Amino acid sequence: MSMPAFPSLAALHAAYADGLPPEAVIAETYRRIAALDDPGIFLALVPETEAVAAARALGPFDPVAKPLWGLPFAVKDNVDVAGLPTTAACPDFAYRPEATAPAVARLLAAGAVLVGKTNLDQFATGLVGVRTPYPAPRNAFDPAIVPGGSSSGSAVAVAHGLVTFALGTDTAGSGRVPAGLNNVVGLKPSLGSVSGRGMVPACRTLDTLSVFAGTVADADAAYRVMLGHDPEDAYSRPLPVAPRPAFIPPGLRIGVPEAADLTFGGDVLSEAAFAAALADLWTVVPGSPVPVDLAPFQAVAALLYTGPWVAERYQAIRPIVETRPGILHPTTRAIVESATRFSAADAFAGLYRLAALRRATEAAWTRIDVLVVPTYPRPRTCADLAADPIGPNSELGTYTNFVNLLDLCALAVPGRFRGDGFPSGVTLIAPRGADGLLAALGARLHEAAGTGIGTSGAPVPPARETPGPARADEGEIELVVVGAHLSGLPLNGEITGRGGRFLRAARTAPDYRLHALPGGPPARPGLIRVEAGTGTAIETEVWALPAAGFGTFVASVPAPLSIGTLRLADGTTPKGFLVEPEGLAGATEISAYGGWRGYVASLAR
Amino acid sequence: MSMPAFPSLAALHAAYADGLPPEAVIAETYRRIAALDDPGIFLALVPETEAVAAARALGPFDPVAKPLWGLPFAVKDNVDVAGLPTTAACPDFAYRPEATAPAVARLLAAGAVLVGKTNLDQFATGLVGVRTPYPAPRNAFDPAIVPGGSSSGSAVAVAHGLVTFALGTDTAGSGRVPAGLNNVVGLKPSLGSVSGRGMVPACRTLDTLSVFAGTVADADAAYRVMLGHDPEDAYSRPLPVAPRPAFIPPGLRIGVPEAADLTFGGDVLSEAAFAAALADLWTVVPGSPVPVDLAPFQAVAALLYTGPWVAERYQAIRPIVETRPGILHPTTRAIVESATRFSAADAFAGLYRLAALRRATEAAWTRIDVLVVPTYPRPRTCADLAADPIGPNSELGTYTNFVNLLDLCALAVPGRFRGDGFPSGVTLIAPRGADGLLAALGARLHEAAGTGIGTSGAPVPPARETPGPARADEGEIELVVVGAHLSGLPLNGEITGRGGRFLRAARTAPDYRLHALPGGPPARPGLIRVEAGTGTAIETEVWALPAAGFGTFVASVPAPLSIGTLRLADGTTPKGFLVEPEGLAGATEISAYGGWRGYVASLAR
Repeated sequence: MSMPAFPSLAALHAAYADGLPPEAVIAETYRRIAALDDPGIFLALVPETEAVAAARALGPFDPVAKPLWGLPFAVKDNVDVAGLPTTAACPDFAYRPEATAPAVARLLAAGAVLVGKTNLDQFATGLVGVRTPYPAPRNAFDPAIVPGGSSSGSAVAVAHGLVTFALGTDTAGSGRVPAGLNNVVGLKPSLGSVSGRGMVPACRTLDTLSVFAGTVADADAAYRVMLGHDPEDAYSRPLPVAPRPAFIPPGLRIGVPEAADLTFGGDVLSEAAFAAALADLWTVVPGSPVPVDLAPFQAVAALLYTGPWVAERYQAIRPIVETRPGILHPTTRAIVESATRFSAADAFAGLYRLAALRRATEAAWTRIDVLVVPTYPRPRTCADLAADPIGPNSELGTYTNFVNLLDLCALAVPGRFRGDGFPSGVTLIAPRGADGLLAALGARLHEAAGTGIGTSGAPVPPARETPGPARADEGEIELVVVGAHLSGLPLNGEITGRGGRFLRAARTAPDYRLHALPGGPPARPGLIRVEAGTGTAIETEVWALPAAGFGTFVASVPAPLSIGTLRLADGTTPKGFLVEPEGLAGATEISAYGGWRGYVASLAR
Repeated sequence: MSMPAFPSLAALHAAYADGLPPEAVIAETYRRIAALDDPGIFLALVPETEAVAAARALGPFDPVAKPLWGLPFAVKDNVDVAGLPTTAACPDFAYRPEATAPAVARLLAAGAVLVGKTNLDQFATGLVGVRTPYPAPRNAFDPAIVPGGSSSGSAVAVAHGLVTFALGTDTAGSGRVPAGLNNVVGLKPSLGSVSGRGMVPACRTLDTLSVFAGTVADADAAYRVMLGHDPEDAYSRPLPVAPRPAFIPPGLRIGVPEAADLTFGGDVLSEAAFAAALADLWTVVPGSPVPVDLAPFQAVAALLYTGPWVAERYQAIRPIVETRPGILHPTTRAIVESATRFSAADAFAGLYRLAALRRATEAAWTRIDVLVVPTYPRPRTCADLAADPIGPNSELGTYTNFVNLLDLCALAVPGRFRGDGFPSGVTLIAPRGADGLLAALGARLHEAAGTGIGTSGAPVPPARETPGPARADEGEIELVVVGAHLSGLPLNGEITGRGGRFLRAARTAPDYRLHALPGGPPARPGLIRVEAGTGTAIETEVWALPAAGFGTFVASVPAPLSIGTLRLADGTTPKGFLVEPEGLAGATEISAYGGWRGYVASLAR
């Protein structure tokens, strides 16, 4: 019983369940931080005694009440934590916040234990991670390569297994590029789905908190804890972010950029890595890619560099730029000061152009559910950056810049290691609200790649599929299916096509008789309730449907079937299929088969 | 059989049904235009011979295929119609468009007959209607008072009964202020619900086409024809605009500004008119007003004048402002050129401020469904304007400026005439998508005010409530209710609270038996199907529910009731209430009463 090589939620919670005390994990975390000796990762550490005390204060291990119980984590230093300074990597800007950012407070309330604040490209302006007056974090795999940014410290801390997860922020790729450069997962949520209060803004219309973790499951777990509408944050939105589905929906349409739209800066190893990631993907999602014209997406990405959004960065730190520009990193200053060339009319012109381009990209989303791209074209060296502080940075954003402008969500997942042993990364992108779908797909893709977590070599725990009940607070309604709507049977698509997700297999109470109705195909079952205890317990499946999907489903059910209340053996009483008694004329009772599958199997014999 | 005093849809279609030829109406329209002799209303007329030919080409009267059959209409001259110049009231800007704006094309396809293009405040910049190098339209009631703008010509044309309806545009009140000053209806749709292609932009993020008409029913009829997503317009949105409900939902919450927030510029007649409108409102909606703090709404309105949105007007005509500013109206030029004082950073700062204020206004919308305000504080004279071209204009926008910035829809409805015989106006405001609700309420309010239409004195036709079937293309699902969910009975709120609207009373086929189930309250009916022709035809009501509301309703139905397919005597087979046979133990058959109402009445005897 000791600290696992990588402190994933699964590994730590297994150890905690076996009796490992969380203070031992926290102490080991600080030992690893000291042993690594990279002064660029953390800009501030919680004193070890405080972190150990916080771990001790968690009380008995209780992963139900506190789903992040005992998990060490870090926070990018442009996010407020009461008691620690917020620097945004600009020492003369530093302040001591009164309040902890609400999203961080949720993580703490869920049992996560904060160990420190991490380094970044100053004011989150950059994708390289070295635009900081502090020592830059070293890339976890090759110190000659930039760590990636702007959330450099958070990504590297996770890569080394110093923490289970770390918060970043993402405006143009800051939550994805450093994940791809350090063999960890980077989850960029749908804009507005997590409270942004207590975050130093970069571009307020595009910013979001993000999560770095060793596995998709862990990133999703942290995200789900933070997820929620915050009426006090003007950019928070009450988005219906569906939960991670229990399995990848059949018929998922995967878009891949047309070959001519893919650029790797001439790096054949990166090109090969992306091809390998696609090959892994087809093992997870049988089918073939839908070619996507990336041109409108690339035009949006270009807008971010040539358009007026840099004025948001200017506005975010306007008093500094206008009165104390000397305190800024020279590259940051040059970028932000360039905003003065844009007028308000230019700003609106940019917004119009974005609206038109967004419309142009919508065509793609009628043909695909998920777009798969490399996380970045190729790794760039610190030497490249020293020679040209802008060009390599821009190149790193090739596949990330358009995502927030287009209101998409994204998940950066490690791919197989390149031929030279450096990590590679692939990013899954989908319309806002599809975060759960990306997590389901990303988890399987990460597993398929077979890379260990971060630098640890620890294997990715296989994705556990443990769906809970329908989430009534998110509008889901449970539906019991009995016949051809069971998974794998001909009408199941009527459920999955309406956003249904499988919840559980269940038997009815022994109060029913099952019949095969005349007519078809498809053959249909007739379930009718009889006096309690005088019938048969029939095999069923319980699915969850969104309210609208449930509504249109019920509307599509033909006579003599109806939707009423079923009594299940597990004590629940969800809605499900029944039959009108008048409809049983000519039907055959098949209760003895125990369920529709048994009956269908008997026909095939 | 002659042309009615006011050419409302109801009056004209009644005359057409009686055989009045549409070309007679068009000829009379041109005669009225000539007789009125106000050269400020139209900037271009369709040649009478062409309009008459268009009317003749309509073919036989067919208001089902062409709901606007034979209705003369006009279009504000900042909207494109092929064959006529578009001037935006700037002669040197004029161009001849190749294509007709898609929304106008829909009106033409629905049988409306275009007679001309109407005058406006140049580039739709103004609320007074006299910022035009052409003769200004005269206010239809008092030439000393401004006609209101920017859609001055359209409002005045309707007020005089020259056309059934006219298109305006609305960015800050241009579709409402002139309605209120001329005793007509002004419908300002939810942003993006009507294609804005072919419209000269003012502020692209805030613009919408609008409708002036003599009655709410006519404005709504024209709006419904134009309504629809246009993928080629970057600011079009696939909004679910629910149809006008068949009646005003019970429990509707009406917000009224706190007394301290109401300003009438010291005009006691305007103040009295608003009080009278509220008195009329309480006869339509029994209840009491919810006081609303207007401060955050007023702060938004102030943003429009002090903030960067004027830069949208600059961007809209940038080549003119930068190279030929001399062609602009002096006031328009001064306003648009003021945009140069705003930087891109200022623009984003304004957007952030708006986002924060919008959030602040959301609290009000959790307490109210509709906000009622005066359409403007007081009428202003042309002399006022000559002395101060800006101040009176700003005052007129007091109750309109915030609406588009906050993504609300609005409907300006005539109130009772003031003590001095001048019109008054009241405006209903609601969150986007509630256009139908406003139309239902506005129609009743207009009727209650008892003012004739425009200058004609013709009475407002009573609101006809003729709901059709459920609109499947808008996601509605029909539900047959049998018992306590019938209108007026205790559980009907479970239907209306989910957005249900009454469709029709209907009997089932004679294939059912109705029971009173044991238990309650509420008492519940049990309808069960028996062999065809051997049962009773039971009285029911058919309601339409949105899919999600239908879904949650079905999920709430307790055992032993279920939702299956009913056979109605009218041949339809909607979903509705059934009962499980096992649930009939202890029930009383009540088929002989013919329905639940008859049974309930028998209990009360």
